Amino acid sequence: MKVGLLGHGVVGSGVRKIIDDGLTWEVRELEVTRILVKDASEITDPRMTLHADEVLNDPAIDVIAECMGGLEPAHSYVKKALENGKYVVTSNKKMLANYCNELFDIARKNNVTIHYEASCGGGIPWMASLDRTRRVDDIISFRGIFNGTTNYILERMSREGSSFADKLKEAQELGYAERDPSDDIDGHDVRFKVNLSCVKAFDTLQNIDDIITFGIRNIDKKDLQWCADNGYACKLLGNGEFHADRICAFVIPTFLKKEDVFANIPLNFNAIESNSLTLGRAMFFGQGAGSLPTAHALVQNIVDIYKSQDPEINDKFPVAIDNSRHEGVYYIRTLRPEVFAACTDRMISDDTLITGRISLLEIARLAEKAADDKLFIAEVTE
Amino acid sequence: MKVGLLGHGVVGSGVRKIIDDGLTWEVRELEVTRILVKDASEITDPRMTLHADEVLNDPAIDVIAECMGGLEPAHSYVKKALENGKYVVTSNKKMLANYCNELFDIARKNNVTIHYEASCGGGIPWMASLDRTRRVDDIISFRGIFNGTTNYILERMSREGSSFADKLKEAQELGYAERDPSDDIDGHDVRFKVNLSCVKAFDTLQNIDDIITFGIRNIDKKDLQWCADNGYACKLLGNGEFHADRICAFVIPTFLKKEDVFANIPLNFNAIESNSLTLGRAMFFGQGAGSLPTAHALVQNIVDIYKSQDPEINDKFPVAIDNSRHEGVYYIRTLRPEVFAACTDRMISDDTLITGRISLLEIARLAEKAADDKLFIAEVTE
Repeated sequence: MKVGLLGHGVVGSGVRKIIDDGLTWEVRELEVTRILVKDASEITDPRMTLHADEVLNDPAIDVIAECMGGLEPAHSYVKKALENGKYVVTSNKKMLANYCNELFDIARKNNVTIHYEASCGGGIPWMASLDRTRRVDDIISFRGIFNGTTNYILERMSREGSSFADKLKEAQELGYAERDPSDDIDGHDVRFKVNLSCVKAFDTLQNIDDIITFGIRNIDKKDLQWCADNGYACKLLGNGEFHADRICAFVIPTFLKKEDVFANIPLNFNAIESNSLTLGRAMFFGQGAGSLPTAHALVQNIVDIYKSQDPEINDKFPVAIDNSRHEGVYYIRTLRPEVFAACTDRMISDDTLITGRISLLEIARLAEKAADDKLFIAEVTE
Repeated sequence: MKVGLLGHGVVGSGVRKIIDDGLTWEVRELEVTRILVKDASEITDPRMTLHADEVLNDPAIDVIAECMGGLEPAHSYVKKALENGKYVVTSNKKMLANYCNELFDIARKNNVTIHYEASCGGGIPWMASLDRTRRVDDIISFRGIFNGTTNYILERMSREGSSFADKLKEAQELGYAERDPSDDIDGHDVRFKVNLSCVKAFDTLQNIDDIITFGIRNIDKKDLQWCADNGYACKLLGNGEFHADRICAFVIPTFLKKEDVFANIPLNFNAIESNSLTLGRAMFFGQGAGSLPTAHALVQNIVDIYKSQDPEINDKFPVAIDNSRHEGVYYIRTLRPEVFAACTDRMISDDTLITGRISLLEIARLAEKAADDKLFIAEVTE
């Protein structure tokens, strides 16, 4: 089966190397025939080209592996590939999470599929396990620490009593966090992964903007001190819950009881669990993916296509996110506590309160009303 | 595809229920047509019989799901099923680990396969992930906490400073440990799982008696005190390492640095990791399987057979276990320290010593020579 690569950076070159090396018989059935590179200085191989059309329009190519990253031109290229009847594998969570409703529709119309195991969970076979579980079972819910950078920051802050700014800087120096860290610390990266996990777990297509997302940008030492004093650890969790005709999907810092396994996930590790009818809780953990694990996951998806294990051929159905169905107790630190007065159970300082049991949708509505750019919100587990 | 069940206890009835319920299209392609039960009082369904031959010799049956447990008659029935050209799925680790060399050979000769995802890792999709990883990659090694009962005992002893006898009794009262706990506390259960994990990870058939196995029967409070004082946690680990023509395979209590993820696996959880060329470290954790997760794993294997995803058709090759290739530093508490004099680096009390770097095979040889039924040995990680 012939593969066209878009991009030859760390991930793309990893895909090429794994396929060229052909360690297993499955991989030896694959062949990389065209590779799109960014500039002439990169061309070191007769398969390389600077012209996307030479890859996307090549009738011999069966599968496009998108390894470019970013929204454009990755999105346009993937769209074109699907329209040309080519299968697509991608690790680009941001692009796919933002355009999945459009792209799954085009794929279905052209009788091909999009595979995105590498987009979420990286070194953890999270997406593949969801596929497998769903052959026998319905997924009821999932939750996870989907972002190693924020987990690193939260754990170091808790352990050392240090400030958010210090630990963010440290994570940047270690190469865990980007120079512009907003996708991580505002929860967008987790939101992308929650959206794609919903597609995979529930076969649903939802509006990504409806995924309520609270990040850790405003977390303070004293929030973590309260956690420690009350037997909690703070983790940024992504969540999905299936309720027949609706789903809940949200990203929120969560104060977990110390004995919760997720409370003990260290440093830059990810951990995700699914809950399904017969399998029950199945959990995965591992380090955020490097380039080779990501390339490995892309090649796995190409082997899936070669073997015609096409779970993604299932029709997806549009579904409404309705976060009013998720209720919890929330820790809120705000310059405008009066906005939350009606749902306050108790004040724990002048600017910090614990709510009574209330729907997440209502909390999001009040948070918007407060318009407080120093607001920090966390769910408190019972 | 027609399925014959051997046994209708908690696991067998779970398999029947999942298939009868037919939640997914894959499962609706399966049908349980015959069920072997133990005595007449169990018969509540026209498919049930007291005669194994009515299941094993039924030409309409494609797959036998062995859900009986124990060595015999499970072993004879599975052998007969394979000889009759039927596929077999089983969760019976003890039986399969003891007879796998014979049974894989019979399966190969009859052009059928044995599937055993449920035998190891239970609620963790460990075996399935090994299969998937191996489509693209070579497994170099694995290690894991394969036994929840001993992990529970070790963690409670460490946390509370309590005795082994007390915590074993508690584990028995909680239903984690059997009345005869020797398979757990002497490491045999882990040995079965290490043997089957080697078959899956390396495609090798080895002599199970060569898997060096040290358990936790003789562990004492003071061993765990030394661990705590020196920044370690003690876990019972099963290990497999591939070295081209040989493998290392062993079970040993291991003192892990506190920051090792495995040092923090709580209570009766299992955690296993594989290390492979491109994927790197992939880790799984979850609670020891209950009856439904085990039934789920058996049904997954039947779906594998239905979909003809037959990784087990690969020929296995016999391999020698050579634990001289694994070297480490060991903590040894013994009534006969003089036996270990030549490899002692330092004594930490009258009866307890730390070795210099030495091969595991040599340690096993000395342990046998010491013939000390109170001996406790652990590997100390660096």
